[in-house]
Amino acid sequence: MTNWSEIDKLTRVWLKESRKNIIQSFATILEIQTKANVNDLVTNIDKETEQFFIENIRANFPKHRIMGEEGFGDKFTDLNGVVWIIDPIDGTMNFVHQQRNFFISIGIYDNGIGILGYLYDVVHDELYFAKAGEGAYCNGKKLPLLSEGLVENAIVGFNAQWLVSNNYMDPKKLFPLIRDVRGTRSYGSAALEIAYVATGRLDSYISMRLAPWDFAAGKIIVEELGGIVTNLQGERVNLLETGSILVSKPGLHENIMQRYLKEQ
Amino acid sequence: MTNWSEIDKLTRVWLKESRKNIIQSFATILEIQTKANVNDLVTNIDKETEQFFIENIRANFPKHRIMGEEGFGDKFTDLNGVVWIIDPIDGTMNFVHQQRNFFISIGIYDNGIGILGYLYDVVHDELYFAKAGEGAYCNGKKLPLLSEGLVENAIVGFNAQWLVSNNYMDPKKLFPLIRDVRGTRSYGSAALEIAYVATGRLDSYISMRLAPWDFAAGKIIVEELGGIVTNLQGERVNLLETGSILVSKPGLHENIMQRYLKEQ
Repeated sequence: MTNWSEIDKLTRVWLKESRKNIIQSFATILEIQTKANVNDLVTNIDKETEQFFIENIRANFPKHRIMGEEGFGDKFTDLNGVVWIIDPIDGTMNFVHQQRNFFISIGIYDNGIGILGYLYDVVHDELYFAKAGEGAYCNGKKLPLLSEGLVENAIVGFNAQWLVSNNYMDPKKLFPLIRDVRGTRSYGSAALEIAYVATGRLDSYISMRLAPWDFAAGKIIVEELGGIVTNLQGERVNLLETGSILVSKPGLHENIMQRYLKEQ
Repeated sequence: MTNWSEIDKLTRVWLKESRKNIIQSFATILEIQTKANVNDLVTNIDKETEQFFIENIRANFPKHRIMGEEGFGDKFTDLNGVVWIIDPIDGTMNFVHQQRNFFISIGIYDNGIGILGYLYDVVHDELYFAKAGEGAYCNGKKLPLLSEGLVENAIVGFNAQWLVSNNYMDPKKLFPLIRDVRGTRSYGSAALEIAYVATGRLDSYISMRLAPWDFAAGKIIVEELGGIVTNLQGERVNLLETGSILVSKPGLHENIMQRYLKEQ
């Protein structure tokens, strides 16, 4: 039987250890490369942090499989067994340009069911955590369940660049929603923005394109708090592929889908 | 003769005192009102913080004049003499929804010339400060001069809602710039975003509509670091009225004006 307490204990140790290495790296010169396009950055620290987790997981839990952003883990066609879904640095552009506003994101799934979620604000040393069925916490303090929300009072995580061009939806379809909400914010890290939904700092978060490691941990935390996570068609998100996402308070999620995103 | 050291010393004391009061207020229920529109929020804490500064300034510097967002200061038709320009809580929507990402902003001008600028991240206790001609600092650590930047590598502070509708510019005119930059971010506090330009975390910050108290302090700090502050026509900003703003690294400012904003 899977020893989730042991997994939790070790994950927290590895997160703290990674934090130490990442903070130390601020004093050194990063090696920055690009991936899919010139603005898709990766550094040696992204890679080293992923490798650090993978080595430790393999040593302690040899049967577990690992899906990592930087590709040092396994290949996946299903989610059978225990699967760690890891983004070693979510918000690499922020890491490079700002040395803040980046997260480590770790979601641990059992046959496709989310069990443990960790969103770690490395610089501010704030750990958002949930164990399915046992509540969600920030640095050990229990987070209240999410209340219902209205579009007119909502602050929505949404990046201006999605309105200019994207390959996923006619940008004009989003204009009425962005006009009607109280405000928009954009922080450049899905993990940060989903942690903000979990704490009520944002009411919703919308992205046209996220990979599983961008939302795997946040989904567990937000759902534990009564929030809703779907794609922009209102369907369950798929942990094996990249797609759009709407993370939201309850009520508000239905409101946004019905009034703005549902096909007419 | 104006004793700027004394002014600086007292301002720092008052900022710390205000921080204490604001942090304490998190445990109480805010009185929230709206101003110009339903999303233009003001709380009792905005008002009390402004009044706290005004009482202290009047008691210590009775000849100084004060321009405050909440209207407890003086009326202005000129900037003669020593003028304090104060936003007691810049980012009130963040203050209400997030209990973080709001700043106290204080710019002190002498006959229209910026002398002392303070941008205070209340929650993180980070004080960005400049004295004209003597450098800019974050928590006492000297900030390096801003380097030149390119549009293609730039992260720009820019809110998605300006692309949907605004009374100041055809939103379509902004599309090519937002498409070409490396990334956009939006934090909901001009003071925070200008502090981010000062530290290089953002390369530019654009707003369609800012009041003098939103940028009076930030202008002093960014200009001390070699950055450029103008309206979106490339003209000097006016400290007596509300208008658009482009705060930027050198080089990049000219690039943005020439390639994207200049009238054809």
